[in-house]
Amino acid sequence: MAIITLTTDFGEKDHFAGAIKGAIYSELPDVRIVDISHSVSPFNVPEAAYIIQNAYSSFPKGTIHLIGIDSELNPENKHIAVKLDDHYFICANNGIMSMICAEIAPEKIVEINIHDKIETNFPVLDVFVKVACHIARGGTLEVIGKVINTIKPIRDLVPFVNDEKNQIIGSVIYIDNYGNVVTNIRRKFFESIQKTRAFEISARNYKFKEILNRYSDVVNFDTPEDKRYDEGKGLVVFNSSGYLEIAVYRSNPTTVGSASTLMGLSMRDTVTVNFSKT
Amino acid sequence: MAIITLTTDFGEKDHFAGAIKGAIYSELPDVRIVDISHSVSPFNVPEAAYIIQNAYSSFPKGTIHLIGIDSELNPENKHIAVKLDDHYFICANNGIMSMICAEIAPEKIVEINIHDKIETNFPVLDVFVKVACHIARGGTLEVIGKVINTIKPIRDLVPFVNDEKNQIIGSVIYIDNYGNVVTNIRRKFFESIQKTRAFEISARNYKFKEILNRYSDVVNFDTPEDKRYDEGKGLVVFNSSGYLEIAVYRSNPTTVGSASTLMGLSMRDTVTVNFSKT
Amino acid sequence: MAIITLTTDFGEKDHFAGAIKGAIYSELPDVRIVDISHSVSPFNVPEAAYIIQNAYSSFPKGTIHLIGIDSELNPENKHIAVKLDDHYFICANNGIMSMICAEIAPEKIVEINIHDKIETNFPVLDVFVKVACHIARGGTLEVIGKVINTIKPIRDLVPFVNDEKNQIIGSVIYIDNYGNVVTNIRRKFFESIQKTRAFEISARNYKFKEILNRYSDVVNFDTPEDKRYDEGKGLVVFNSSGYLEIAVYRSNPTTVGSASTLMGLSMRDTVTVNFSKT
Repeated sequence: MAIITLTTDFGEKDHFAGAIKGAIYSELPDVRIVDISHSVSPFNVPEAAYIIQNAYSSFPKGTIHLIGIDSELNPENKHIAVKLDDHYFICANNGIMSMICAEIAPEKIVEINIHDKIETNFPVLDVFVKVACHIARGGTLEVIGKVINTIKPIRDLVPFVNDEKNQIIGSVIYIDNYGNVVTNIRRKFFESIQKTRAFEISARNYKFKEILNRYSDVVNFDTPEDKRYDEGKGLVVFNSSGYLEIAVYRSNPTTVGSASTLMGLSMRDTVTVNFSKT
Repeated sequence: MAIITLTTDFGEKDHFAGAIKGAIYSELPDVRIVDISHSVSPFNVPEAAYIIQNAYSSFPKGTIHLIGIDSELNPENKHIAVKLDDHYFICANNGIMSMICAEIAPEKIVEINIHDKIETNFPVLDVFVKVACHIARGGTLEVIGKVINTIKPIRDLVPFVNDEKNQIIGSVIYIDNYGNVVTNIRRKFFESIQKTRAFEISARNYKFKEILNRYSDVVNFDTPEDKRYDEGKGLVVFNSSGYLEIAVYRSNPTTVGSASTLMGLSMRDTVTVNFSKT
Repeated sequence: MAIITLTTDFGEKDHFAGAIKGAIYSELPDVRIVDISHSVSPFNVPEAAYIIQNAYSSFPKGTIHLIGIDSELNPENKHIAVKLDDHYFICANNGIMSMICAEIAPEKIVEINIHDKIETNFPVLDVFVKVACHIARGGTLEVIGKVINTIKPIRDLVPFVNDEKNQIIGSVIYIDNYGNVVTNIRRKFFESIQKTRAFEISARNYKFKEILNRYSDVVNFDTPEDKRYDEGKGLVVFNSSGYLEIAVYRSNPTTVGSASTLMGLSMRDTVTVNFSKT
């Protein structure tokens, strides 16, 4: 059974996501629809790029990912379908795919050209669903679009490294449900610059000299008397997606606070890594 | 496979929606359950009416729509099941169906009368699920209720037109995830009054003389130097559901603001259309 | 078809829940995944315990419940799988199961010990999914863990009764989507202490001498002139899960207010019942 996932900024209340699901089942009764997220911040393309990158690869090969963020068709915002890593992605050509494509070269990209047959101001419902069902039935991308070679990039994707290779300047690309602050510095990239050097990570006034493997490594479980970590104390980990993340152990943005709220870190803020000389 | 959709004000956290799904699968292992929305504002019947009206028709004929809003049984709030447009709806008789029924005459309405067999203070779980599974198995409405002829209306459904037919007084019936403000003025209705006349739409101090076909029509893509629209500038469109909507291009209620937040427009506020003489 | 339910604090935005679903479908194409809740407050174990207790039993026997709250493996937080009431539960041993286990004795508890084969810092994805799929394929608990006899308790589970048996001191364990305040005083327990005596319930400065069977019993429907209840007036019911709950009729935390907001009642606050002498 084909799987179609949904990632949108429709929110949890409106009828849009429900209408999409109904339209898919109307065309294709035997399909599995899986919500990835409908709570992407409105029009937040980088956020959607991060979410889809970190969710898609868990799904079986052949899964079709429908992404409804900023998808109104206009002269600067065409619709595309992408085959990559044996997955299919249908979205606007607005940068959403640039994060995945930076890691894995797309096998095929088409600019969708079935719009002349469809009068719509809800393209996710009327165009994307058509394309998704076409692919689910085994149709090829060439039938619904014309092949193109490049997609639109988004800014701030790759951190900056200075010529001396002793500094990485990254930025915040995502803030998660726990208020943890995810940077664009990936583990592999970090280690390729670091070699074996010591380092100091700076975010606003906060400094860190260690990157943990898991959040609770901040707690000393062996010596009960001083086991309790400082609540609200920051820490740095490589998160489960492999990104350098500034976090607070057991954080909760609405109660004890979080890395984002306690340290005042927001989207696009700078996070710097300085490596020592030896 | 039968499809049962869920539209409720249970929210995203509580166990209610999960319990409903479990109860349905316990009675009917081979059914498809689709969430339309669980984030209707508590007890907000007009909101639910708008959501279900705009979601239901995407689903295949025969779909069963279970609506759990303000559904505690009491002398003024009976439970009904409605067949309309080859879809089934199960809900309280509190106005939710009046929006759909204003467009399409129901084929059959029954007041559910199986309550004497069920002791409950969670009727969506105990009564609505029973009724939904009964219909899904091919059962008729008469078995679970007694036929009635009318349903309870909600106020403010239809905009007011003056005797001279040069003014429509509508009101805000929904505010969506992007903070866009939806009025009760439908395109067909608007055009039937307008004929070919020019018009001015007023909402608080804001005036509009044009209705766009899509949000990005507010941007001039041809002349790059002044392509940038005024961020936060309002616009009017007929939305994808055919309702006159006051919107802000690429709005986000929590960052750049939205039609609702920037113009101070709330549920039930008045929106007026004045038509010129010729 | 096996059913796997998900209860987590991943929130509605992040990719975590989507990734879990993808991983399950990759291992087990023919499974039904049902979201119970992803909006448990971060790291809020008592909240999760209440939600899973009240959702699980609606599901068919044999259902597998995957609970992802505070599940990072560390010396004080082991992973367990529990068979109870013919349902399976996979979670951290952090108290989540203590609420269900207080009612029904578990048939079997194992401490999961497949971690040495899995390098992970996202155990819900890498460990819990493996265990869930193992059980769904008919595997036994002994294969993935070693039998243990007790689980970690949570505090404040059971209300306190004084020696004279004329006072129950309970506490708030959950605040629902409507802002209703759920206490840890269950109907059966209450009635076993009450016998036939009159009582007064106190929560902050609010006093109640009656427990309703449903919310709208606060309204007098017979005498239209004074039918309207006092909006915002509190009431006490045994809720649909059998817990004593302080509520406001038709409450909405963001508009008219709710029991929680209007009476200032929060998690862990005390609710006292005093019984009269005769």
